[in-house]
Amino acid sequence: MGRWEPNARDRLERAALALFAENGYDAATVAGIADRAGLTKSTFFRHFADKREVLFAGQGMLAELLSSAIRAAPPSATTADCLAAALESAAVAFTPERRDLAPQRRAVIAANSELQERELLKRARLSSVMADALRARGTEETTARLAGELGVLAFSTAYARWAAPENRQPFTQIALAALRDLQASATTLGANADVRA
Amino acid sequence: MGRWEPNARDRLERAALALFAENGYDAATVAGIADRAGLTKSTFFRHFADKREVLFAGQGMLAELLSSAIRAAPPSATTADCLAAALESAAVAFTPERRDLAPQRRAVIAANSELQERELLKRARLSSVMADALRARGTEETTARLAGELGVLAFSTAYARWAAPENRQPFTQIALAALRDLQASATTLGANADVRA
Repeated sequence: MGRWEPNARDRLERAALALFAENGYDAATVAGIADRAGLTKSTFFRHFADKREVLFAGQGMLAELLSSAIRAAPPSATTADCLAAALESAAVAFTPERRDLAPQRRAVIAANSELQERELLKRARLSSVMADALRARGTEETTARLAGELGVLAFSTAYARWAAPENRQPFTQIALAALRDLQASATTLGANADVRA
Repeated sequence: MGRWEPNARDRLERAALALFAENGYDAATVAGIADRAGLTKSTFFRHFADKREVLFAGQGMLAELLSSAIRAAPPSATTADCLAAALESAAVAFTPERRDLAPQRRAVIAANSELQERELLKRARLSSVMADALRARGTEETTARLAGELGVLAFSTAYARWAAPENRQPFTQIALAALRDLQASATTLGANADVRA
């Protein structure tokens, strides 16, 4: 109790994901997760508020990374440049060492409707954080909102591709390619804008 | 009990919104809503599953309208044309007679974080319904997903403008204008798509 535990957070996360995968998310308990990790419940609670936070603890850091990168982009950067900078900055959270956890996390969420809702709310929050950061740079309201959604689509597409077992590319490369695909789609959707004007 | 009540659904909806506004959403009860409407609890439950459904009962119909309009669009329609058809079809749910309820509904949701989450999930569902309908027409995956988000942004922007006290325009006109604004933003975001390629 209270002593320093090497890699406690990582061990707890891996133990939780293993238990969620084996017995289902609902059946897992904090005591069971701590036990599986060879740690105590009190160590668990020093790292996570509850078992759900094991799956969503990264949201705050991710929001901060995306937002900071947009705010730090040079004044000459276009809105699309800002989104690219945001995605590049997020890559620190998606290192090769963490890639094996992603398919497990995705499978747990896909199997539970409450967690799926939580994931949708996370996406809405990330979209809104990016839109806010763009507004703070002076991006016009409609473009800021659409850019927030486009950024989150690029992020979630990239995350799914990065997590795929056959993938060997780093997150940044995948994310920038997803962003370019979405920009091409945006061009398609923007065309014929005056047909019904 | 059991007899036909004229406009029961509308009376229940207005009574619920009035109570939510006066005492807060959490304090309102089904019995109180029915009483305020001069109806019984069993009449309430013939129309709504619970008090939250008074605020979100339209979601299923709206999803159906948006989806059907996209599926019914002629083969020559562009993706943007499909979104315009979807928004036009939604207008039947946003008649002048219902406009005075909208600001109350928005205020109730804005004051309650659980309802805000529910509203975000509603938007995610509508986006996904439009993307599915576009995929069924053969729209490419990335464009379908982005179009779903763009459609929902157009819808939510239009709803907010339509609900504004100073507004006198019909929903369709507002929604198509919002769509055109978003298409212009999409063009902006699509530009420079190859800068980092």
